[in-house]
Amino acid sequence: MLSPIFYAGEEENLLAFLSDQKATQIILLADANTNGFCIPLFRSLFPSLSNCSRIIIPQGEVNKNIDVCNFIWQELNVLQADTKTIVLNIGGGMLSDIGGFACSVYKRGIEFINIPTTLLAMVDAAYGGKTGIDFQGYKNHIGTFHAAKAIYCQPQYFDTLNERILWSGIAEMTKHALLSNEKDWQNLIHFQRNDFLSIEQIKKSLAIKMKFVEGDEHDQSKRQCLNLGHSLGHAIESYSLQTASPLLHGEAIILGLYYELKLSEQYFDLPANISALTKSLKEKFFAQLQFNFNYSDIAPFLLQDKKNHEGIRMSLLKHIGHCEHGIIVQENHIQALFS
Amino acid sequence: MLSPIFYAGEEENLLAFLSDQKATQIILLADANTNGFCIPLFRSLFPSLSNCSRIIIPQGEVNKNIDVCNFIWQELNVLQADTKTIVLNIGGGMLSDIGGFACSVYKRGIEFINIPTTLLAMVDAAYGGKTGIDFQGYKNHIGTFHAAKAIYCQPQYFDTLNERILWSGIAEMTKHALLSNEKDWQNLIHFQRNDFLSIEQIKKSLAIKMKFVEGDEHDQSKRQCLNLGHSLGHAIESYSLQTASPLLHGEAIILGLYYELKLSEQYFDLPANISALTKSLKEKFFAQLQFNFNYSDIAPFLLQDKKNHEGIRMSLLKHIGHCEHGIIVQENHIQALFS
Repeated sequence: MLSPIFYAGEEENLLAFLSDQKATQIILLADANTNGFCIPLFRSLFPSLSNCSRIIIPQGEVNKNIDVCNFIWQELNVLQADTKTIVLNIGGGMLSDIGGFACSVYKRGIEFINIPTTLLAMVDAAYGGKTGIDFQGYKNHIGTFHAAKAIYCQPQYFDTLNERILWSGIAEMTKHALLSNEKDWQNLIHFQRNDFLSIEQIKKSLAIKMKFVEGDEHDQSKRQCLNLGHSLGHAIESYSLQTASPLLHGEAIILGLYYELKLSEQYFDLPANISALTKSLKEKFFAQLQFNFNYSDIAPFLLQDKKNHEGIRMSLLKHIGHCEHGIIVQENHIQALFS
Repeated sequence: MLSPIFYAGEEENLLAFLSDQKATQIILLADANTNGFCIPLFRSLFPSLSNCSRIIIPQGEVNKNIDVCNFIWQELNVLQADTKTIVLNIGGGMLSDIGGFACSVYKRGIEFINIPTTLLAMVDAAYGGKTGIDFQGYKNHIGTFHAAKAIYCQPQYFDTLNERILWSGIAEMTKHALLSNEKDWQNLIHFQRNDFLSIEQIKKSLAIKMKFVEGDEHDQSKRQCLNLGHSLGHAIESYSLQTASPLLHGEAIILGLYYELKLSEQYFDLPANISALTKSLKEKFFAQLQFNFNYSDIAPFLLQDKKNHEGIRMSLLKHIGHCEHGIIVQENHIQALFS
């Protein structure tokens, strides 16, 4: 079942929904950044929740790990959280990933509501029930499928973001348009900056994601199409997290998308203008993005993810709106992209 | 859906079932004890699985923690486990609890098969999909609902157990008889030692558990009846784990059952002969059990588990075969049991 989404202006509906849950306690989970920049807005929007207890974790993907999970569980113990406690995850994708995971296994599962504060989290991470933490350098290696009880989408949070974090969300919106249809794709490539930030476009992007999640919540078949750009994107991101200049998730994904579209040309005769347009989007919205790596840097992360010994399974694009998952890609074809 | 159980003599069926799963790899998870005492029998029963990779963890409830989980995940990484890997958990309840949990969140869930080697694990822990580890002294505080893909029940493993571990399983069988009907209860109180160890009685005991699990896998209603004896039992066990003479799970549960039957007399007029007969069973099969504690020792563990501020919710017995869950028990009534 898909989780309800409450949009800006529907604060009363969210409060009524919360009240229906008959929670014994509501706890806010934020990171050091969102605690400073987003909690004030949250309090002004929801004065009746101003005095809820808070758990504050360190910010950044590098802290999406088991130690921070341990800390969340300890804090839940201190607050005497029970199985009728509801946690509100206030932050970007890192926060809904780790907060969702920590809740999903605490006492075998307590409910949580995601309040995404970044564009990326609004169009992707907060929705669809994938939770997780990184482990030994591998992205989301330990996790669960556990959908948020609800999501609250409030674009006012964009005012709290720096440019780099804001535009990082465009990568997943680009992926959604590629998976949708020619019209959505043509629209997106002509977007001006503000178009990406409208509630209308966020809803549209989320609706595309939903179509792939619904009926395949556990990622056994069609949902894997949402992995487009992510086999290489995750490997690039994992490697970057070990360097002095880590990439944001969306930055790694726009690179992963570009390379996987190049592979799609090779495997499915995808017209070359699609990867070229994706490259233009990258240059327009990720102008500062400079990241150098060799195939040997990302190979260990890519190979750990491989499903069998025949090659590496990826989701590739046949044409706009038609993605195929589980395509076996030869390692030497990937290697050739970077030589 | 309930997991299939393969009994002694059905080894070929289990192998055929395994083959149908098309696993990329089969990994054995054992503890230091079962590695020494149970793997040899496993190899003689399943020669074709003799050369599977093994992960060996330290034995004992005290090691059912997040550090050992971390170790299992690291070992799965070393073995390049993928989402089509199947883990065989060979051991008692501690092993199926932690092994099941580690698998259920590794790459958001890989399958496992439980091969219980103790009476307690055969009649209870291996079956029903509850996984978990202890955290900050609280039993199964972090866990998931994730059913084993199958269970293999082989009473030959009893020959590997010392008496104390063997008879620890009787507590859950006693609970199942209390939850079943007058006939099963009358049978059980007249059992000789070997009766408890027969495949027929193990099947019967498991069938009672199944009736409570089926349709309530996530422990929202009738399954909570299986908690009879466990509110106090878990608190006693948790406290004992911090002392120099920790109790086995079954030992704590036979004590918990006795005290919760005393509460049932008070709350539901349960006839006093039932707690008296349970005490006789304890004296017959747990003759060495000596454990002294005060209410103040177990109170912290009991109170953390409480669901609200009105009191402590328990499952209590109205009469044989009729248990009520969610009964609010006043703290002073519990305290009086131990004064």
